[in-house]
Amino acid sequence: MTNDALLRALERQPTDYTPVWLMRQAGRYLPEYRATRERAGSFLALAKSPALAAEVTLQPLERFALDAAILFSDILTVPDAMGLGLHFADGEGPRFARPLRDEAAIRALAAPDPADQLRYVIDAVREIRKALAGRVPLIGFAGSPFTLACYMVEGAGSDDWRALKTMLYARPDLLHRILEVNTRAVTDYLNAQIDAGAQVVMLFDTWGGQLSHAGYEEFSLAYSRRILSGLRRESGGRKVPSILFTKGGGAWLEAMAASGCTAVGLDWTVDPAAARARVGTRVALQGNLDPAALFAPPDAVRREVRRVLDAFGPAPGHVFNLGHGISQHTPVESVAALVDEVRTYSRRLRGAARSNP
Amino acid sequence: MTNDALLRALERQPTDYTPVWLMRQAGRYLPEYRATRERAGSFLALAKSPALAAEVTLQPLERFALDAAILFSDILTVPDAMGLGLHFADGEGPRFARPLRDEAAIRALAAPDPADQLRYVIDAVREIRKALAGRVPLIGFAGSPFTLACYMVEGAGSDDWRALKTMLYARPDLLHRILEVNTRAVTDYLNAQIDAGAQVVMLFDTWGGQLSHAGYEEFSLAYSRRILSGLRRESGGRKVPSILFTKGGGAWLEAMAASGCTAVGLDWTVDPAAARARVGTRVALQGNLDPAALFAPPDAVRREVRRVLDAFGPAPGHVFNLGHGISQHTPVESVAALVDEVRTYSRRLRGAARSNP
Repeated sequence: MTNDALLRALERQPTDYTPVWLMRQAGRYLPEYRATRERAGSFLALAKSPALAAEVTLQPLERFALDAAILFSDILTVPDAMGLGLHFADGEGPRFARPLRDEAAIRALAAPDPADQLRYVIDAVREIRKALAGRVPLIGFAGSPFTLACYMVEGAGSDDWRALKTMLYARPDLLHRILEVNTRAVTDYLNAQIDAGAQVVMLFDTWGGQLSHAGYEEFSLAYSRRILSGLRRESGGRKVPSILFTKGGGAWLEAMAASGCTAVGLDWTVDPAAARARVGTRVALQGNLDPAALFAPPDAVRREVRRVLDAFGPAPGHVFNLGHGISQHTPVESVAALVDEVRTYSRRLRGAARSNP
Repeated sequence: MTNDALLRALERQPTDYTPVWLMRQAGRYLPEYRATRERAGSFLALAKSPALAAEVTLQPLERFALDAAILFSDILTVPDAMGLGLHFADGEGPRFARPLRDEAAIRALAAPDPADQLRYVIDAVREIRKALAGRVPLIGFAGSPFTLACYMVEGAGSDDWRALKTMLYARPDLLHRILEVNTRAVTDYLNAQIDAGAQVVMLFDTWGGQLSHAGYEEFSLAYSRRILSGLRRESGGRKVPSILFTKGGGAWLEAMAASGCTAVGLDWTVDPAAARARVGTRVALQGNLDPAALFAPPDAVRREVRRVLDAFGPAPGHVFNLGHGISQHTPVESVAALVDEVRTYSRRLRGAARSNP
């Protein structure tokens, strides 16, 4: 591989600079992405075409010196493959035609076979690996069982997750049944991505931060832990690192670090120095610039990037990223400034640390 | 005062049971509230009529054995009094006709005189005190300077606060100018509420949790601290306790506890035992049941209430509340179960602790 800085940083090995990639880096803020999506006709048609998914996955790498590619897909492909009927209304978020609201539907739920109902994703992974030709590693991903359950029960995004929470408090047995199926499904799905060529996998627990302290362990982390312990550890003779990200999960970093993942993703509310003190050298850390910092002019972006790099310090085991997915309203020049500043400033920071150890 | 359990608990003095009140306890989940609002014509007409505001403030006390009344009002009365033009579109959240988007408008911003532009609130406080006739204490409140600024810049609620965050990163000087004015305004406003009879004050920092670790201190807590140090300490010969609540502020409990407040409000993601260990006996703690637990049947509500009470333990210095405002979709019988369970179970818990010290 030409550039393995990400893999080395995730294993907490030294690198000359801090590797960087951005959650949702292949996305609507890029005009070339919008053009491909236009051609595809819809977001789902784009995600379901391995050739087009590969095309957009590589787009940000043509513009910016990023250290990883991430599979272009959506976390909701899994419940869609379970038959819930995913669609995207124009200008709105995802919706399911058949959300899980009654016991019979929940009892009938089964994990899909990734080689069958999710074959388009697995084919995309293969195409992307071929197109990357070893430039940078490819990250595969899935939603956490809890985050998938949020959408599956609610039927769409929500600001209070009322249907989901009602089930959680009134019929926790039903929610646990959904989480069991999701755990099997996500384990199989991520392993199929690894078999097809994904070199890193990331588990997105976007809504775990909506849970209470006790609820996070019971309804989210317990299942993520089972997935992490069921993942293939190696592929092509190299370890496959895993990243666990819980938005709003700052209170639970120790537990996340002990879950079996290689790295913990931090959202932008977390103090990187305090996070490192809490998790020790058990895991690498990924993050955590506020995505909204990219709405500022390039000079301010560079200042905020330096602030994040200083907070993580020059020790190995940091992967630079945003604290959440990049906004569609982000100016492209902000991303260019971010990537350049991470590279140049972190190289200087690490050089200085080496000469004054 | 007939029932001063809240005041005693806020000062960490022993009480026979854990006092309880609920954020937004006078609200849409109550049919009698909806009837009064119907009569008023609109939310703002209701909030601006001292007689009607007093009426709805007392409604939940007629139904439930709550240990406090909280002024019925809205945090956005303050920017409305600054001339931003608050209105509520049907079925939507608050909107400002004149959000702060240019430097001239920000330079022209001035703190309102509570005795003039906010007189209807001060009159409501007086009416409520009279109607309460010493049954329970009355809590006054205001939004934090940062949370008010979120709405003032954005013009409405938001899921990414793009306009606000752009100003924060691109023109922090302008945001600081707004926060200065808000700090003066909120200090004057809360002192006027205290002068009119509020016996406790609470500062709601609903959106502070959207800030980065460094940003929370700079743009939110620094200003809340100034307000807390500028508040009247006593009224009618009795201390006036203050409560600081930051939703999503679990990472910053130590700093919040050192801000000068009497009590820190916890959202439902925070582990009460860990919170108590972190803040010591410096402050009382308020919270923190997930408001969504109230969507479950009464038995499940009681179970979750006991779980929260057990987590806080029997030591003095806990005020029971939700971890955020009560939802309009809450069944009234859930609230009845909550209030009853807090009273009976906490009395037992404290009794047991006294007999086995």
